[in-house]
Amino acid sequence: MNHDFNQEALELHAKGHGKIETGLKVPLTTREDLSRAYSPGVGKVVQEIARDPSLAREYTLKRNTVAIVSDGSAILGLGNLGALAAIPVMEGKAAILKSFAGVDAFPICLDTQDAEEIIKAVKQLAPVFGAVNLEDIAAPKCFEIEERLRRELSIPVMHDDQWGTATVVLGGLINALKVTGRGEGKDVKIVINGVGSAGVAIARILLAYGFGNILFCDSKGIIHANREELTKEKLELISKSTLKGFEGTLAQAVSGADVFIGVSKAGALTKEMAESMNSESIVFALANPIPEILPEVAYEAGVGVIATGRSDYPNQLNNSLIFPGLFKGMLENNIKQFEIEMFTKAALALASHVQDLKKDSILPNMFDKELVAVIARSVE
Amino acid sequence: MNHDFNQEALELHAKGHGKIETGLKVPLTTREDLSRAYSPGVGKVVQEIARDPSLAREYTLKRNTVAIVSDGSAILGLGNLGALAAIPVMEGKAAILKSFAGVDAFPICLDTQDAEEIIKAVKQLAPVFGAVNLEDIAAPKCFEIEERLRRELSIPVMHDDQWGTATVVLGGLINALKVTGRGEGKDVKIVINGVGSAGVAIARILLAYGFGNILFCDSKGIIHANREELTKEKLELISKSTLKGFEGTLAQAVSGADVFIGVSKAGALTKEMAESMNSESIVFALANPIPEILPEVAYEAGVGVIATGRSDYPNQLNNSLIFPGLFKGMLENNIKQFEIEMFTKAALALASHVQDLKKDSILPNMFDKELVAVIARSVE
Repeated sequence: MNHDFNQEALELHAKGHGKIETGLKVPLTTREDLSRAYSPGVGKVVQEIARDPSLAREYTLKRNTVAIVSDGSAILGLGNLGALAAIPVMEGKAAILKSFAGVDAFPICLDTQDAEEIIKAVKQLAPVFGAVNLEDIAAPKCFEIEERLRRELSIPVMHDDQWGTATVVLGGLINALKVTGRGEGKDVKIVINGVGSAGVAIARILLAYGFGNILFCDSKGIIHANREELTKEKLELISKSTLKGFEGTLAQAVSGADVFIGVSKAGALTKEMAESMNSESIVFALANPIPEILPEVAYEAGVGVIATGRSDYPNQLNNSLIFPGLFKGMLENNIKQFEIEMFTKAALALASHVQDLKKDSILPNMFDKELVAVIARSVE
Repeated sequence: MNHDFNQEALELHAKGHGKIETGLKVPLTTREDLSRAYSPGVGKVVQEIARDPSLAREYTLKRNTVAIVSDGSAILGLGNLGALAAIPVMEGKAAILKSFAGVDAFPICLDTQDAEEIIKAVKQLAPVFGAVNLEDIAAPKCFEIEERLRRELSIPVMHDDQWGTATVVLGGLINALKVTGRGEGKDVKIVINGVGSAGVAIARILLAYGFGNILFCDSKGIIHANREELTKEKLELISKSTLKGFEGTLAQAVSGADVFIGVSKAGALTKEMAESMNSESIVFALANPIPEILPEVAYEAGVGVIATGRSDYPNQLNNSLIFPGLFKGMLENNIKQFEIEMFTKAALALASHVQDLKKDSILPNMFDKELVAVIARSVE
C-alpha cells in the first residue's frame, strides 16, 4: 500500500474543520428541558457537588472525559512545532478514544513549554477531567511532568508516548519470543536503540517484567557509566541491566543479540547489523514514518520476526491497541493512578488475546471489537 | 408554573453522567480512515499549520470551539463553591451553545481563584479555542481578567455574566421604553441596584448607548463620591452619570425614577418603592431565583413593564437570547475581539426582532429559530 494519505488528510481535515465536536446527551428543545439542564434546576446539582465533591463523577462529564494534553514540543516524529500544530494530533487521539472505547476526550494544547508551567496548568484544569493523557511532550521533561502529576493529582495520568508504546512492545515481545521458540525468554539479549520518552518506558517495563540483559544505545553508541552528561534516566537504566561494562557502537551492541527494539531513526539498523544478530532474531523497528530497517530487508537478513509502526506492513505496533482500553478501564473502575503493574498486566492481556499466533501476526487487530474490553478488564 | 425542577435536574444529570460528550465528525472504522484522520496523514496537517498558523482555523476544531471558563467563585446566585461545583453550569452553557447555535464548546473549570493565575491559564490553553466565554467569576476580579485577556489574546473574550446580561437588558429596555410611550427615552431616570459584574456592564452599555441619568445603588444605598473605599469601577460609573451629588437610600433613589434595574437580591424593591416610581415605570428585577420584586406585586404597585430572569413569568431576561448568536457571529466572521459597540448592535437587533411588541412581550422567544442568525449577523 504505497498510498499517499497527505492530500486526503488535508481534505478530510478541511471538510469539517477538524474531527471532533460537542455532542449532546440531553434534550434542549423546550423551556422545561432548559430548566432541568440549566437554570434553575442545575443549581441543585451545583449544591450537591459542593456538599460532596465525589458527586462530580455522578453528575458531570468528568467521569468519562480524558484531557489529551500536549505542548507540541515533540509532535509525532516531526519535532517541536508548538501548540497550534499539535491540535490535529490531539484531536485525532480524542476521536480514537471515543470511536474505539466510548471515552470522551478533549484536546488541550498548551502555549507553554516550561515543565513547571505545564504541571501547574494541568493541575488547574484537572477538575473537569477523569484522567489525563500526556502526548508528544519532549524528553526528558516528559518524565518529570508525568511523575509530578501522578503524585500531585488524584486522577490517572499517563504519557502515552511512553506507556502506550511500552505496553504494546512488551505484549508484542512476549508473543514474538513464544513464536520464535524462546518460551518466556527472560534471558534473551536485548538492544534498545533510542532512549527518549518511548525508549525509557520500554526499558522500564521490560526491566519490571523481568528482562535483565539489555544494552541501551543512543546516537553515540552504547550507553555506559563512563560517558559524560548522562541524564538521570539513562543512569537509572544502565544501573538496572545485568550487561555491565560494555562500550562501543550500535553495531557492536547488536552483534549476537536476540532482540532489537528501535525507537530512533530511519535506517539505524543496517542489513549487516541484522545479519549479525542471533538466528530467529526479533526486530521491532518503530521509527516513523520510516523504520530503522524495512521489513523486506530484515527478512533478507534472516530476521525471524519484524514489527514496525506502519499500517502497510504486518505486525503494526500501534498505541491505539492499548490506550483506549487502558483509559476506559481506569475511568470505569475509578482507579486513582496508573502504576507499572497495570501496564504489564495490559501487555499480557494484549498478548493473550492473539488467537492465531504467527510470526507475522503477533498482535491483535486494532479493530477487534473485543480488544478494548479485554484491556479495560486487565487493570481492574 | 410552581414546578420544582430540583429532583428532575438531579435525575437528568445522573442518567447520562452530565450533558455533553465527544461527537465525531470523521469516520474511524477502517485502517484507511485512521491513516487520514491520524497517523501518517495527520503529519501533513501538522506541518501545514506549523508553516501557517492561521490554518488551525481551517483544519481543526479551533474555528468553531468556545472555552467556557470559570473558577467557580460566583456560581449562579449560589456563591463561591469552587471548580468542581461549577462543572454542571459550564457544561450546560456548552450544551446550549451547541443546541442553539451549532457552536462547539468545552467547560474549563479552573482550580485557582487568583486573577493572575486565571489569566495565565486561559492564555496557555487558548490555542485550541476560537473564543472564550468567562462565566461565574466574582467581581471585581472579573473586570480585570476580561480586560487583560481581551488585550493579551487574539481570540474574542466575553464575560457573559457581564455582557450577555447587559445586552439583553439594553434590548429589553429599548422595547420597554417604546411600549410605555417613551420613544427612545434617553432622558429617563434610571436606578441600577447592584454593581457587581452584571450591574457594571449594564451601566457601561447604557452609558455607551446614551442613557445619562443613572443612579447607582449597592447594599449601602446610593453610590456617591464622598463614600469611602469605592472600587475603580464604581468611581468610573458615577463620574459618567449626569446625576451628581445624590446621597441616600435605595428608596430615595427610586422615588420618581422611570426605570429600576435590579441585579441584587430577593425582595430588594418593596411594593412601596415601586409605587413611588413614575407612572408606567419599568422594572427589571433580575435577582435569581427570587427577583427583587415579584411580578404580581409589581403590577399591584402600578408598574408598567416588569421583567425577571425567570421562565415562569413573561418577559424573561435570559442571556441565552444573546450569547449563542454572539459567539456564532464572532467565530463565523473571524472577528478578533469583542467591543462594546457589538453589544449595542446586538441589543438593537434583539429589540427589533420582536414581532408583536407588548408590555408582557418585550423580548423574542428563546426558541425562535431565526434569533441566533439575527444576533450573529449584527456583529458582522
